Amino acid sequence: MGARPKFVCWEARSKEMKVLTFEKGKSRRLRLTLASTTTPTEHCELERDGFCQNPFFECLVAEVHEEDKAKEGFTMVGYALYFYTYSTWKGRSVYLEDLYVMPEFRGKGIGKGLLGKVAEMGKKEQCVRLQLSVLEWNTPSRDFYAAKGALDLTDNEGWHFIRFDGQNLDNLANEAPKD
Amino acid sequence: MGARPKFVCWEARSKEMKVLTFEKGKSRRLRLTLASTTTPTEHCELERDGFCQNPFFECLVAEVHEEDKAKEGFTMVGYALYFYTYSTWKGRSVYLEDLYVMPEFRGKGIGKGLLGKVAEMGKKEQCVRLQLSVLEWNTPSRDFYAAKGALDLTDNEGWHFIRFDGQNLDNLANEAPKD
Repeated sequence: MGARPKFVCWEARSKEMKVLTFEKGKSRRLRLTLASTTTPTEHCELERDGFCQNPFFECLVAEVHEEDKAKEGFTMVGYALYFYTYSTWKGRSVYLEDLYVMPEFRGKGIGKGLLGKVAEMGKKEQCVRLQLSVLEWNTPSRDFYAAKGALDLTDNEGWHFIRFDGQNLDNLANEAPKD
Repeated sequence: MGARPKFVCWEARSKEMKVLTFEKGKSRRLRLTLASTTTPTEHCELERDGFCQNPFFECLVAEVHEEDKAKEGFTMVGYALYFYTYSTWKGRSVYLEDLYVMPEFRGKGIGKGLLGKVAEMGKKEQCVRLQLSVLEWNTPSRDFYAAKGALDLTDNEGWHFIRFDGQNLDNLANEAPKD
């Protein structure tokens, strides 16, 4: 494989979701295994949610040429999964949920290419922001984004992420006023 | 006005966006002015983005009875603006972007009602999480969410919010690989 293989980024179609299977790694990071190791249910959910009338996400895939394929034989070596969000201050934003490149293809501009492509898609949709979240300990990613001019809103403005799930979410829903 | 006025929550329609105008307050918080003080452009954007084929957000409005109306005469006294996001780990989530209640109507269960209604809408869409962001200094809100069982993912897991905008976003988009 050349030092910087050529690659193209294109929008995933429903059938690619069968190849682009997501596996939960021990490190709690998502991994693109590029092999069918997830359950049919998970495939179904990704197909249902990404390719319906009002899709919950969009996905870009990075593919290298056949001669640069991965050891396991795959040409699809990375992906970026994103969706659109909204600010009443600023309007449309694009949110990058997952950016993944297979380890053997890292450091070759593919992650940067996918990030750029998501920014380009966002700009086409008149988004004025590209946002994402990163873990404190993930220094390589934080440095990567900082080098590209990203602002850390948690460090600089004090934004905290809040989540309700499970029973707490059910409790909230049960407290909704009845019409 | 009674101590706990009755109110109903309903989904905002396009025409309400002309009434539910958003004003940027000096405190950098959004305010629901309930008067037409924003520019036509802003109305147009809210209408365009919230009521198109694939809307960028949804909005619930809290309305009190005529006899409990605000000093300024309004019956719409709060709103919750939200949209759907996605996790490849967990699937669909609902994200609460803005939750606002007019000051004179606070502490009367209206914010709680709107939050519950958003949770209920999320559950109907098979969401397993309700997420939001809150500023470090906003102790009343943080306490309100914590009391309802919310998890602070920044404190507990180290999640940081990252943003690209302006020239940095343009630079990213310009670096996208050309097809």
